[in-house]
Amino acid sequence: MKKIGILGGGQLGRMLLQAAVNYPVETFVMENDPEAPAAHLCHHFIKGDITRHEDVYAFGKNLDALTIEIEHVNTDALEKLEMEGVKIYPNVRTLKLIKNKIYQKEFYREHQIPTSDFVVTENREALRLYNDFFPAVHKLANGGYDGRGVQIINSENEIEKCFDAPAVLEKKIDIRQEISVIIAVGNAGETVIYPPVDMVFDQNLNLLSYQISPAELPEKVFWKVEAIALSVIKKLQSPGIFAIEMFSDAEENVYVNEIAPRVHNSGHHTIEGNYSSQFDMLWRVMLDYPLGNTQTILPSALVNLIGEEGHKGVAVYDGLHQVLSMENTFVHLYGKKETRPGRKMGHVTILSSEKQDLLYKANKIRRTLRVLNV
Amino acid sequence: MKKIGILGGGQLGRMLLQAAVNYPVETFVMENDPEAPAAHLCHHFIKGDITRHEDVYAFGKNLDALTIEIEHVNTDALEKLEMEGVKIYPNVRTLKLIKNKIYQKEFYREHQIPTSDFVVTENREALRLYNDFFPAVHKLANGGYDGRGVQIINSENEIEKCFDAPAVLEKKIDIRQEISVIIAVGNAGETVIYPPVDMVFDQNLNLLSYQISPAELPEKVFWKVEAIALSVIKKLQSPGIFAIEMFSDAEENVYVNEIAPRVHNSGHHTIEGNYSSQFDMLWRVMLDYPLGNTQTILPSALVNLIGEEGHKGVAVYDGLHQVLSMENTFVHLYGKKETRPGRKMGHVTILSSEKQDLLYKANKIRRTLRVLNV
Repeated sequence: MKKIGILGGGQLGRMLLQAAVNYPVETFVMENDPEAPAAHLCHHFIKGDITRHEDVYAFGKNLDALTIEIEHVNTDALEKLEMEGVKIYPNVRTLKLIKNKIYQKEFYREHQIPTSDFVVTENREALRLYNDFFPAVHKLANGGYDGRGVQIINSENEIEKCFDAPAVLEKKIDIRQEISVIIAVGNAGETVIYPPVDMVFDQNLNLLSYQISPAELPEKVFWKVEAIALSVIKKLQSPGIFAIEMFSDAEENVYVNEIAPRVHNSGHHTIEGNYSSQFDMLWRVMLDYPLGNTQTILPSALVNLIGEEGHKGVAVYDGLHQVLSMENTFVHLYGKKETRPGRKMGHVTILSSEKQDLLYKANKIRRTLRVLNV
Repeated sequence: MKKIGILGGGQLGRMLLQAAVNYPVETFVMENDPEAPAAHLCHHFIKGDITRHEDVYAFGKNLDALTIEIEHVNTDALEKLEMEGVKIYPNVRTLKLIKNKIYQKEFYREHQIPTSDFVVTENREALRLYNDFFPAVHKLANGGYDGRGVQIINSENEIEKCFDAPAVLEKKIDIRQEISVIIAVGNAGETVIYPPVDMVFDQNLNLLSYQISPAELPEKVFWKVEAIALSVIKKLQSPGIFAIEMFSDAEENVYVNEIAPRVHNSGHHTIEGNYSSQFDMLWRVMLDYPLGNTQTILPSALVNLIGEEGHKGVAVYDGLHQVLSMENTFVHLYGKKETRPGRKMGHVTILSSEKQDLLYKANKIRRTLRVLNV
């Protein structure tokens, strides 16, 4: 059996290991918290710091392959491992490029991939040079995740809110739709693409409220979305699984917002909604199996369960029984003991051939199921 | 989080734990082999003998609930645990009844549940009294499993092949179809029933070759199957999940063959084919959640992967890449290092709305994918 490791033990690792159950593979997880959602589902749990060179190198040196749950890992150790023959998904060059927002934007520009206009800012003071650039979005070069490290700046009066560290300042786009496409790339460079997903965001938390797959898109937008996503992947030249997040505007322009070089929240519906889920697919890549079928079994909606404002402590799931009684829904709770405001605690997928049923139930679940503390 | 244990760590435990990933539950497995298919997927693995009183009692005494993967467990220890308040799925009275083939047949007779005619035989010699009973099937009262402990006897000349131990001798039925129905029973006695499954057996190994769900049944047989399955469950009076295996004959009579008081091979297709799988369903029962939806998402076929004759040792899966390339199939390998003739090594589920597609692919998979040794 191949030995394959995951850096990080959160819900992405948890669902990856759930999919690994179908295949013969010896699994390893490194993570600081021995009670993390994925910690008990692997053959070998190693307590360690994924940002620390020694820990990552020691973890990886006897493995056949390694993947990540989060970009903020020690890439120098991964580079050493890659040179020594351990396969890293995504490859380290790609990981380094994506984990830094400045490099990522420069990559789009270099390869003429449509993206919002931007400038690089070294510190907060530097933003004074770009008064005509607002409204804009300020994004930290390093360490942003799940809405952290992102700040909307409407005018120069709000420069105080900006990051005083290397960052990119992106012109704000008048977004009509937020779209995500998941693509898998095999070891020989072969690709498969999932149907696009329409993401509806909660503007307060910058967290997904619900998503619909397949997205209903104007035909022109649909073709652009697929063509752009595939061209991004072609330029990256890395095996693995990728989420390409895009915006469309009223003029049917499409812009790449960002890439995640890993399984992604916008692909969770594929567990029930598609023949091969994003998690199944990554194992196929890493085990050198043929890529799976990305086709939709039934259209889906997905609702994230986010820790409620004002609730911090041991989690309880208010309304859970009601949602478990809904006949075409699939509840996924991540097994995190503690909730806190904005924390991702689970998700619910709804399958239906009727879009109205998807929307009705997605909204009902959002109103019904709440993560509180005891 | 509730603490729930599984006695046994084979593929049933493995798929149960895969389904548990969706819910907040602390999981325990007791099993002798620390490399068993389910051993690495629980929070707490306890090495122990599931037939030994002390081991089972020590394992269960701090748990909220317990279930089984196989009937051959120490029921005296479970009885003590049940009296002390640990919930056992199925309850111990039911487990004792079902694990003994004599009690099981007498239960059918007592409750007028249609079943093949039978006599109880204390030893091999006793069969001489029933020369007019052949052709018949001799089944060991205790310890039979997966085709072991079952012997077809065509005439009195074959009495030598019979078991020299307490057993039942059942009149052989001229089987037209073998049908299985899975039913879940909640803690308040509420039931849900899955669509019936048509099972096609390999007569040599007495192992399932493939199964189709939902079964195509004559209307009269369909209603009988459902009514009989529900009446069996009503008489058993136990929460849990049950497979009721039945035969139909050319006259459209339906007979109960046997009951499994647990998740069962004939329900593996529910992982992809039904909204709530049999594994999901048992967690719902044990966690006191509402029962799930048994409806079919798409019709399915299921092929078991059985260790090939003449192959014993470290397993390899010949033809695996071809089957992984089939676009509507789901491969489940149980992660057993060693294969041996007749060992259950995995299964493949096919989803399709076209019955011809199901049959074509089921047969293709049977020819293509073989479990050999290296």
